[in-house]
Amino acid sequence: MAEYRSLRERYSLLDLCRTPELAAEVTMQPVRRIELDAAILFSDLLLPLEPMGIPFDFVRGEGPAIERPLRSEDDLAAVRRFEPRQALAYVLDAIRLLRRELAGRVPLIGFAGAPFTLASYAIEGGHSTSFAHTKALMYGAPAAWHAFCERLVDIVSEYLIAQVEAGVDAVQVFDSWVGVLNARDYREFILPHTRRLFERLRPSNVPTIHFGVGTGAILGELAEAGGDVIGADWRTPLDEAWTRIGPDRAIQGNLDPTLLLGPIDRVFQAADDILARAAGRPGHIFNLGHGILPTTPLEHVQALARYVHQKTRR
Amino acid sequence: MAEYRSLRERYSLLDLCRTPELAAEVTMQPVRRIELDAAILFSDLLLPLEPMGIPFDFVRGEGPAIERPLRSEDDLAAVRRFEPRQALAYVLDAIRLLRRELAGRVPLIGFAGAPFTLASYAIEGGHSTSFAHTKALMYGAPAAWHAFCERLVDIVSEYLIAQVEAGVDAVQVFDSWVGVLNARDYREFILPHTRRLFERLRPSNVPTIHFGVGTGAILGELAEAGGDVIGADWRTPLDEAWTRIGPDRAIQGNLDPTLLLGPIDRVFQAADDILARAAGRPGHIFNLGHGILPTTPLEHVQALARYVHQKTRR
Repeated sequence: MAEYRSLRERYSLLDLCRTPELAAEVTMQPVRRIELDAAILFSDLLLPLEPMGIPFDFVRGEGPAIERPLRSEDDLAAVRRFEPRQALAYVLDAIRLLRRELAGRVPLIGFAGAPFTLASYAIEGGHSTSFAHTKALMYGAPAAWHAFCERLVDIVSEYLIAQVEAGVDAVQVFDSWVGVLNARDYREFILPHTRRLFERLRPSNVPTIHFGVGTGAILGELAEAGGDVIGADWRTPLDEAWTRIGPDRAIQGNLDPTLLLGPIDRVFQAADDILARAAGRPGHIFNLGHGILPTTPLEHVQALARYVHQKTRR
Repeated sequence: MAEYRSLRERYSLLDLCRTPELAAEVTMQPVRRIELDAAILFSDLLLPLEPMGIPFDFVRGEGPAIERPLRSEDDLAAVRRFEPRQALAYVLDAIRLLRRELAGRVPLIGFAGAPFTLASYAIEGGHSTSFAHTKALMYGAPAAWHAFCERLVDIVSEYLIAQVEAGVDAVQVFDSWVGVLNARDYREFILPHTRRLFERLRPSNVPTIHFGVGTGAILGELAEAGGDVIGADWRTPLDEAWTRIGPDRAIQGNLDPTLLLGPIDRVFQAADDILARAAGRPGHIFNLGHGILPTTPLEHVQALARYVHQKTRR
């Protein structure tokens, strides 16, 4: 969006995240221009790292860069809990501003990273394709891994509970990269922790969304770990994904975001296919299967949102 | 391997690929030190790009860098066929050297990239996570895409046939990154081309292996496109993958290569699980689910190969 790029000329990504008025403004930008049914808090998965004792920055064009990635059992053990109402007060302030500005027009969704995904950023030090350092620690030091994940669950659950107190209507848990694990490893190293995270969120009484990319082989396990809604990427057809998740859960997805870079007719065709697979069942949230790409034409997103509303409004 | 790193101190990756004696030497290094049942030609997927008119280099620590990535229909149309017996004679010479040196002890496997994977390197210009440029051209200019893939199939099939003539005993077709497509897009944009590639290889009468990463959702389509053996990564359990591929095909896989960075007991456990899922059926090639990582301890690979042989020898 032009208005976002214009802000980014003056402010860094972290400036925007850390300034409640700016974070609220960026959150509102798509709500004003696109027929969306919810606002998603503008923030970043990595913000909790700094108060955990893991400083990082964003390098233009390269993504996140952690100054001293965690590479040993001692590194994992040194990570500290913190009080999100102090350390991440700016996020909660943005939520309060948004709560007033949205005034109930659409719900506000907060979010945080799940244990594997947060751990992988902290351990790899940035983007990875193999997740070799993370998995080497996981396989090689399982006791330290489990203790680390327990701490991450404490941190993330407190952070999400604070977001709910500040006014979000739903929370999304991003285990974006957990699809690099097979079911066996997911069950051993991740599922118990993610389950505890969702259990901790239950008393907050808000809907929870659980999302990962490339999770076709572990959708059943993701659902078992928790989440009222399971997010699916575009690789698995929506009906198949829903069968694996189970009929008692809602599903979010699953248009390939790269489609929006191509002709709009093809976007509509793919939306038709997804809606046909959802078959009008309650509990489908139409969404992209992963994050929107920076080069996406705004008009395509606007047209898609209108199209899905036209096709589904009764 | 220490002997490989020692060569890399003196020669670049491309030097090794382009010097038949060195490529043959690097191919032999693992054969000498590990109980392998085949030798895999040391080479690189990108070598055909240069004679196609797409110069590139390898940037230390960053992987391949294409000088002028293909971004328009005209760029795609400008790519040229070439005579592999001239332009890639150094690869064929390495095969002839290896043929003599191996003297039938173990078979030699040659390889090349499949249309989507080659196209994605040429279009993205290097590694990608979203494959946004590639998919934008595929969705936005389907006629140019299909013409480009037809040319890639001509090029790759001629290259693989030349490898067979020079002496490889089997060929592996790497569609490493095609798992970013869902079945619908794979069927429309890739399957007809890959099928034609395997049809072109049939008269050569050597076994063909068809491999991709993260292809859990399209294993059936990959098998439909062709290959006597289908490679599976570690995400889908081997027995489930085999069911999707069909009982008439062989399967290759599927140990997570990151396991080799951890304790050997866990490697053996995972190998046991894979062998149990293969259930002693003929047509299983034990292999890693993706490329070996540079930090892998050689002793772990040696121990794994011995272990699998002990467990499967009758």
